[in-house]
Amino acid sequence: MNSPANITDPLVLFMPSGKRGRFPVGTPLLDAARQLGVYVESVCGGRATCGRCQIEVQEGNFAKHKIVSSLDHISPKGPKEERYERVRGLPEGRRLSCSATVQGDLVIDVPQDTVINAQVVRKAATDRVIERNSAVQMCYVEVEQPDMHKPTGDLERLKAVLENDWGWKDLRVAPHLIPEIQKILRKENWAVTAAIHKDMEFSRATVIALYPGLKNEAYGIACDIGSTTIAMHLVSLLSGRVVASSGTSNPQIRFGEDLMSRVSYVMMNPDGREAMTKAVREAINTLIGNVCEEGGVDRHDIFDSVFVANPIMHHLFLGIDPTELGQAPFALAVSGAVQGWTNDIGIDVNSGARFYTLPCIAGHVGADAAGATLSEGPYRQDKMMLLVDVGTNAEIILGNSARVVAASSPTGPAFEGAEISSGQRAAPGAIERVRIDPETLEPRYRVIGTDKWSDEEGFEEASWTTGVTGICGSAIIEVVAEMYLSGIISEDGVVDGSMMAKSPRIIQNGRTFSYLLREGRQGEPRITVTQNDVRAIQLAKAALYAGVKLLMEKQGVETVDTIRFAGAFGSFIDPKYAMVLGLIPDCDLSEVKAVGNAAGTGALMALLNRDHRREIEKQVAKIEKIETALEPHFQQLFIDAMALPNKVDPFPKLAEQVKLPPRKATSEDGVGGEATPRRRSREERAARRGRE
Amino acid sequence: MNSPANITDPLVLFMPSGKRGRFPVGTPLLDAARQLGVYVESVCGGRATCGRCQIEVQEGNFAKHKIVSSLDHISPKGPKEERYERVRGLPEGRRLSCSATVQGDLVIDVPQDTVINAQVVRKAATDRVIERNSAVQMCYVEVEQPDMHKPTGDLERLKAVLENDWGWKDLRVAPHLIPEIQKILRKENWAVTAAIHKDMEFSRATVIALYPGLKNEAYGIACDIGSTTIAMHLVSLLSGRVVASSGTSNPQIRFGEDLMSRVSYVMMNPDGREAMTKAVREAINTLIGNVCEEGGVDRHDIFDSVFVANPIMHHLFLGIDPTELGQAPFALAVSGAVQGWTNDIGIDVNSGARFYTLPCIAGHVGADAAGATLSEGPYRQDKMMLLVDVGTNAEIILGNSARVVAASSPTGPAFEGAEISSGQRAAPGAIERVRIDPETLEPRYRVIGTDKWSDEEGFEEASWTTGVTGICGSAIIEVVAEMYLSGIISEDGVVDGSMMAKSPRIIQNGRTFSYLLREGRQGEPRITVTQNDVRAIQLAKAALYAGVKLLMEKQGVETVDTIRFAGAFGSFIDPKYAMVLGLIPDCDLSEVKAVGNAAGTGALMALLNRDHRREIEKQVAKIEKIETALEPHFQQLFIDAMALPNKVDPFPKLAEQVKLPPRKATSEDGVGGEATPRRRSREERAARRGRE
Repeated sequence: MNSPANITDPLVLFMPSGKRGRFPVGTPLLDAARQLGVYVESVCGGRATCGRCQIEVQEGNFAKHKIVSSLDHISPKGPKEERYERVRGLPEGRRLSCSATVQGDLVIDVPQDTVINAQVVRKAATDRVIERNSAVQMCYVEVEQPDMHKPTGDLERLKAVLENDWGWKDLRVAPHLIPEIQKILRKENWAVTAAIHKDMEFSRATVIALYPGLKNEAYGIACDIGSTTIAMHLVSLLSGRVVASSGTSNPQIRFGEDLMSRVSYVMMNPDGREAMTKAVREAINTLIGNVCEEGGVDRHDIFDSVFVANPIMHHLFLGIDPTELGQAPFALAVSGAVQGWTNDIGIDVNSGARFYTLPCIAGHVGADAAGATLSEGPYRQDKMMLLVDVGTNAEIILGNSARVVAASSPTGPAFEGAEISSGQRAAPGAIERVRIDPETLEPRYRVIGTDKWSDEEGFEEASWTTGVTGICGSAIIEVVAEMYLSGIISEDGVVDGSMMAKSPRIIQNGRTFSYLLREGRQGEPRITVTQNDVRAIQLAKAALYAGVKLLMEKQGVETVDTIRFAGAFGSFIDPKYAMVLGLIPDCDLSEVKAVGNAAGTGALMALLNRDHRREIEKQVAKIEKIETALEPHFQQLFIDAMALPNKVDPFPKLAEQVKLPPRKATSEDGVGGEATPRRRSREERAARRGRE
Repeated sequence: MNSPANITDPLVLFMPSGKRGRFPVGTPLLDAARQLGVYVESVCGGRATCGRCQIEVQEGNFAKHKIVSSLDHISPKGPKEERYERVRGLPEGRRLSCSATVQGDLVIDVPQDTVINAQVVRKAATDRVIERNSAVQMCYVEVEQPDMHKPTGDLERLKAVLENDWGWKDLRVAPHLIPEIQKILRKENWAVTAAIHKDMEFSRATVIALYPGLKNEAYGIACDIGSTTIAMHLVSLLSGRVVASSGTSNPQIRFGEDLMSRVSYVMMNPDGREAMTKAVREAINTLIGNVCEEGGVDRHDIFDSVFVANPIMHHLFLGIDPTELGQAPFALAVSGAVQGWTNDIGIDVNSGARFYTLPCIAGHVGADAAGATLSEGPYRQDKMMLLVDVGTNAEIILGNSARVVAASSPTGPAFEGAEISSGQRAAPGAIERVRIDPETLEPRYRVIGTDKWSDEEGFEEASWTTGVTGICGSAIIEVVAEMYLSGIISEDGVVDGSMMAKSPRIIQNGRTFSYLLREGRQGEPRITVTQNDVRAIQLAKAALYAGVKLLMEKQGVETVDTIRFAGAFGSFIDPKYAMVLGLIPDCDLSEVKAVGNAAGTGALMALLNRDHRREIEKQVAKIEKIETALEPHFQQLFIDAMALPNKVDPFPKLAEQVKLPPRKATSEDGVGGEATPRRRSREERAARRGRE
């Protein structure tokens, strides 16, 4: 190729990577980039036809780098590049790095735009940069024609040129392509583009699709199969761009609202497993249709896919009976990553496309938790990170680069508004924010669909179309926390009847009391928070916190350094109120972050960079799983966590920012004594019994 | 395991391999065998339940080996072995080598019977010994039960015990098994037998089937897909025994008698390829049913299969359009070995079973020729071996350990009795042997269905039931050769009209003459050999010989050392007459052997020992293919070969055993002159034209 560089050769600096090196005059810039490990895509193999390898010269005197870069230092456009510009168009200033050669010192910008050459994908929620190394590569070749003197098969000659031009050794060809090869090769005069998958469950790269001539498109999907919602990204594997994102409800809901009722459905109905597998695969196929329509993409140009899901969704998706996951010892059929052909699981994309599911961590901590772990990477940093994904089952990961532990805790559906008297899902008309004046006990609130608070002028008009219909998950946290902060409920979660004297908003219901949040206009419901509502939130948050605490004990830490809330619920709750309620342990509030659908982001990472697959497989194997049900200590932690924010744990950092009520109960009974939790335990049990 | 052996340890000699070694007292004999590389099967992993590891002690003083072997030198039966004997029965003298231990010097016989422990398969036709190393191994394991503290999947624990007990590292599990694993594991209390395939197209061994408890059966099929006949062996992969063999006609015949008419059918009919693929696969499925019924085997116990076929049959079987094989440059879609799941090609055996097709050598020299090459192994020895498989297309291999060359030659169907006036296939009533008295020109012959010659007493009665209906392939060779030896036809193949004076059996038909072989009883045909019949045989044998000669020229040899006739045709013809006719070059007659369906034997070898797959893949890549159509010299060789036995080539070794007629033509025209072949050429062309 090129002679070795020496000190008098021009210096080339690539931005934004900052990688630099000297190259002899005449070196194509694509070669220079590759020698330095700068990622520049190319499908056509340097024939100036695919246009994927665009770069830009940065002109000027870069004193810091001691480079004077000028347009004179790059070769003028040759006939191939001019033809490309004429036929396909080339933006002002852009050059094809396969054709343009080094003529002097240069600063080269590898454009980060997402249309042609992006190395990165930016996700609004996380502003995350994912380095690309996707499992699929498109390779254009011109195959040698058959020769009676050398009677190798067409397939063998295809493999030979793929090895010769692109370095693929010992390639395998997907069986379904074999009957098609001869026609495809002859269609464009022996020029073809092979889609090569380099992340099979065995080590041999495989031709999974073959096109006559130049094929300059390749897409993948990253999908999070939730019990309630299925979310999907459609991504260009060549540019890294997220072309479309969409979601749909999981149609399995018609078989059962929550996970356990779906397992029951399988156990009770002979065709139950098949029906649910079919339903989820159909929904995914429909969703693929939607994202493809949104992105203007042919679904047959999808070559790779990554799925995350909780264990039961994971099993049903793969056609595995989840019955064992419904009972101790909660045995997963398969815990490792699963790979295969999308054809085999009824996913309708390219017939050579592959799928990959992230590994499951345990029977209750699924591939979705693995996705969130990959996304947030507790193991990639030294701080003790708590990562919680709150759903009907909370998945909890705690750790740092030294050690990661995981557990799940059965929080139930209270956080999602179920089991709450005025609860509803987050939709227009739902109260999403609540404040209570500690003096007057008067509330003010905000409703989805309008920006005005209820005490602002024009709120009634603004909320007229949606109405005010209930309380969604984030506001349930806030209203209970505000009730606690304003003294309406005690540390034990009892609505204080004596407050009736202070405000007419405290209402008696038989033996317990409620708080009236809103009277309601004609036709609207009266919205109250009942004692039972508070108990439901207490039970849910206690389950979560006890799980967290168990993991903290396993790690031997009293506090965590940073907290990540994953999932839709986490995106809307205010960390402060979550901490006031004691969902999460005490922590610097600036270190508590909502990270959105981290499981989906993890799937996206594994789709765009197969190194992330190896990374999470390795990490999941190392994560220590704690089964809360087997820990005798869990019950005690749960009882302590029923109190607000907690019976025994202090919240000093929270107290710096929020004026917490004095610890009434503890000050009466004394702190930390053995007797207290025991007595508390009986009280709580009674309260619980009353509720059931 | 056992401590290292030393010089005072007992000496154990295994027969018939003759491998020997010293082992500490107490070493199980199965371990001793394995340490020496003596093949003893075991499915249960030493639990004394599968009974595959049987051996026998040879008692006596083996002076040559300096061993006194006695029944006292093997441990008595323990409780496990006694239980096996009680439940399953153990033949007199047999022991289970997994339980029996070394107690003193021993001579151990590893029984070569085919029921339990055979290492070898004996084929009647070849008396061949095939060392066994099949692609499938059955492994019994007891899987660890799930544990909430270590929440790995059931599949991961299965893999772990297969690694621990049997040494399988990095195992893969066939995707279709994943949804079944949990039920199978729980059926027999976590005891399962895994069928492991260790010859995938990538390096990872794969669990392809899984059974509750002990599964002690595993079968494979070896199949030769001929244009006319499909032949199949059903083999136990555990014992190596051929359980059943059968054949059926290829139903593609209804689309076209010969290969080219089938290619034409594909070209003329849009669904032609699919129809023929379906037909051959259905026939194979039916044949599998037949061999399974014959062998008392469940077809779902078939885990592996090997197929050989000529290129067009090969492509149609794999679902590949063979059109390209019907025209220059005769491009194969795929020339290498093809592997896959039988499910994907519609072969109905175990749903995890695999198939393997041997590589094709060239567009006209298929996987069947590769199979014959593997079977006869020209490359395994130093003699120059000629291997011919005669069908409508003769496949010719010539070589030795230094170099192998191959070609095909279009012999046409004359050797199979087609295009011959009284030709018929080899069936009762067909004349199969012919002798002609050189003095009287009276024939005597033998007919399929009776052992008597026609001049023996009782022949008429014996042949009454079958009748005498025609001449089959082997007899066509003989009768033409005998006509030549007795002077009825000249070296040029002309039936000599002047012989009418000598015998009434020479009959005139217009401008040419025929030989009356049999008048025929009432209702039976009159059987004659016409001038056209002789010409048809001359054309066929000239094509074959010219191809052989071309390869001899490529090899730079004047003679060959040994000749193998493969195929049904080759099994019945008398080498002497083949040589008299000049089908094959001069050679020591004792070195000419019929080897039956060598292609099928090659398939069987590849089924029973996967090393043979690598062997033939490597050899095929090295074989040099000669395209006769591209060799300008071929035409001349063909013309020379029209003469009997040949215009220019001498047959000195044949002449030692057979009195050949004087070379009339050559003696007239002079030997080896340029003029002769030219003139001959014109004569032959004229003859040919007259015939067409």
